[in-house]
Amino acid sequence: MKFSYISHLYCPKCSNEYESDTVQNLCECGAPLLVKYDLNTLADNWKPKDLEGRSNNLWRYHELLPLTDDSNIVSMGEGMTPLIEMDSLNTHMGINNLYMKDEGIIPTGTFKARGAAVGVSKAKELGVKELAMPTNGNAGAAWSLYAARAGISSTIVMPVDAPKITRNECAISGSNLYLVNGLISDAGKIVGEAVKEHNLYDVSTLKEPYRIEGKKTMGLEIAEQFNWEVPDVILYPTGGGVGLIGIYKALKELQELGWIKKDKIPRLVAVQSEGCAPIVKAWEEGKTESEFWNDSETLAFGINVPKALGDFLVLNAIYETEGCAVSVSDEALLEEQKLISQKEGLFVCPEGAAAFNAARQLRNDGWIKEDEKVVVLNTGAGIKYPNTVSVDVPTLEPNERLKPAAIK
Amino acid sequence: MKFSYISHLYCPKCSNEYESDTVQNLCECGAPLLVKYDLNTLADNWKPKDLEGRSNNLWRYHELLPLTDDSNIVSMGEGMTPLIEMDSLNTHMGINNLYMKDEGIIPTGTFKARGAAVGVSKAKELGVKELAMPTNGNAGAAWSLYAARAGISSTIVMPVDAPKITRNECAISGSNLYLVNGLISDAGKIVGEAVKEHNLYDVSTLKEPYRIEGKKTMGLEIAEQFNWEVPDVILYPTGGGVGLIGIYKALKELQELGWIKKDKIPRLVAVQSEGCAPIVKAWEEGKTESEFWNDSETLAFGINVPKALGDFLVLNAIYETEGCAVSVSDEALLEEQKLISQKEGLFVCPEGAAAFNAARQLRNDGWIKEDEKVVVLNTGAGIKYPNTVSVDVPTLEPNERLKPAAIK
Repeated sequence: MKFSYISHLYCPKCSNEYESDTVQNLCECGAPLLVKYDLNTLADNWKPKDLEGRSNNLWRYHELLPLTDDSNIVSMGEGMTPLIEMDSLNTHMGINNLYMKDEGIIPTGTFKARGAAVGVSKAKELGVKELAMPTNGNAGAAWSLYAARAGISSTIVMPVDAPKITRNECAISGSNLYLVNGLISDAGKIVGEAVKEHNLYDVSTLKEPYRIEGKKTMGLEIAEQFNWEVPDVILYPTGGGVGLIGIYKALKELQELGWIKKDKIPRLVAVQSEGCAPIVKAWEEGKTESEFWNDSETLAFGINVPKALGDFLVLNAIYETEGCAVSVSDEALLEEQKLISQKEGLFVCPEGAAAFNAARQLRNDGWIKEDEKVVVLNTGAGIKYPNTVSVDVPTLEPNERLKPAAIK
Repeated sequence: MKFSYISHLYCPKCSNEYESDTVQNLCECGAPLLVKYDLNTLADNWKPKDLEGRSNNLWRYHELLPLTDDSNIVSMGEGMTPLIEMDSLNTHMGINNLYMKDEGIIPTGTFKARGAAVGVSKAKELGVKELAMPTNGNAGAAWSLYAARAGISSTIVMPVDAPKITRNECAISGSNLYLVNGLISDAGKIVGEAVKEHNLYDVSTLKEPYRIEGKKTMGLEIAEQFNWEVPDVILYPTGGGVGLIGIYKALKELQELGWIKKDKIPRLVAVQSEGCAPIVKAWEEGKTESEFWNDSETLAFGINVPKALGDFLVLNAIYETEGCAVSVSDEALLEEQKLISQKEGLFVCPEGAAAFNAARQLRNDGWIKEDEKVVVLNTGAGIKYPNTVSVDVPTLEPNERLKPAAIK
């Protein structure tokens, strides 16, 4: 048995192939590269029962991850996040089998840790010493901390409006951190120039092939947590869309391995904000690529991405699975966030709340049926977004007492 | 097999016994009650291999938890947090086998989730409808969210200086939240009056017997994660001290079950802040109880507890295991927090940073030996404490470029 069955890299647009044992970024044609595994050999050598007794994190799937030598693993115990039954919200929404995959229960508090763990580990394996990226906050936080753990230096550029907690995470990791008076697309341009001028490893979304392999593990875990019987619908808050692309890739690979059946794949739903919905617009128009969304704005900062490099892969995953794309208003997601906390005790991030509201919309429309098994990805912990909750609390003096009416 | 082998409650001070199937708070003598299990019967019926294939959270130990019916479990997937090898800090400290148990990777982002999960579940089993507690922030956040999940109403009183994020968590859960211009001891007095006047279930630290059972699972997990070969030293940031009491209780129960050897128990170290060190003072003076610490102040808010109800249990655990108690300055813990982030990529909370600094002190003193196996509890995620990191970041305009010197 090999530690990884990685074979090579390939371009999903022009089919060009590249070696995986040297540093690679985009294809010559400008498209992102994907990792190809030797699934035929792996299917003979690897079965679900081989996972028994393995460590309870994403490295349990190492055969299907790009790292060839386990000594290069940079881990903080990420993965195998809880799959939680929603025992109260399900009735409220009329979806009997409603689950949340909680990506807040992971190092750095968001799903970005998965991409960073696998991406940084592979960067270490390839001998990278300096990496750079633009970020809306959480990805930069995760990559700078994992880079610190790997002994790799990092340069991070984020919008001034990105969540302040993520600044802390980058700063305390020792990263070279910059803010920009603009959007992530502006940060991207600055990083693009710096990468060229200073020969840094560009780990912008999909500009290196391995982040997606980390995100893929969400799909692997969902399949395993349902004992290899996949759910009917998976909803995913979509900015750059890497998570959704990764989940789709995982499901296809599991089908090829014979671990899940070929006759059923979950319908994948891309959830965006009404203030930034390029994928939704493209899907509604039946297009295969999105257009740049001007003057985007939403408090669900993680999905404020006006034009995603992997938009064509997201749209392809939606079309291939007979999924759809839905947008949610900021007001609706805030209301949903409060409801989830009060009914389920789960303090989800705004992006996760948007995905729940999309499930509600789709149930109301009849697109989701009452008895279908539905999984919503909560991509991060609500505690990372202190400003989305408005609190008005009475302050007492030490000698005061609570009033009966106040206690209910 | 029964779901739980709970037998009854007992007072560690006067040995009085109480039933566990009705609501109980303190012993008549004023001391906290502890849970007793039928360990003799359990020892015959339950072995480490029975844990194989169980869910990867703290409920895997249900035989040794107080819930008698699994339908009362209120869970968000808490427990089995990562045990992380410190591959860089170990050299820096001269402790070859240094591990961190990361209690930030849990619902609500701190170890308080354990006490809340088990405490609220048992409250639900006992038919409780309304609970109340004072808090330094994180416990209130955890209990109010778990209470919401259980359909139990909660009244929470916290100091105005408690971390603001924890206010959000309480508020969004629908809790009756109050701030007090004072310390947790002032909040405690207000709750004490309210409990009497309005017949609420008092879940203040150690005033109900089940929170400690949740915290105990940290000890069970550490033992299991080391394959039932316990480490030499465990360091714990100590405010109310429930975690340390729980870990000690877990280790003693595992010894009685025969799952770990009786001839070795880890030396337990209580870590406090120099600005609030009643346990350290009592230990240095060889006393069995602590005195109220006047004018306490530390930025490690979770361990700002001037007088803990369970102080005598904490001190007993230290004496019985030949452990010790150490205090750390705010400056030292801030420095340590930065170092851990930069060397290990782990953004720990101030309390966790204090515990690491205590390990450093004890190694320098020779109290910890070079090759001893040392576990430090990081009790929460650094992201919950935005104000402990000072960030000074340059802001660029969209057309600006990074300077070579800035990139290094």
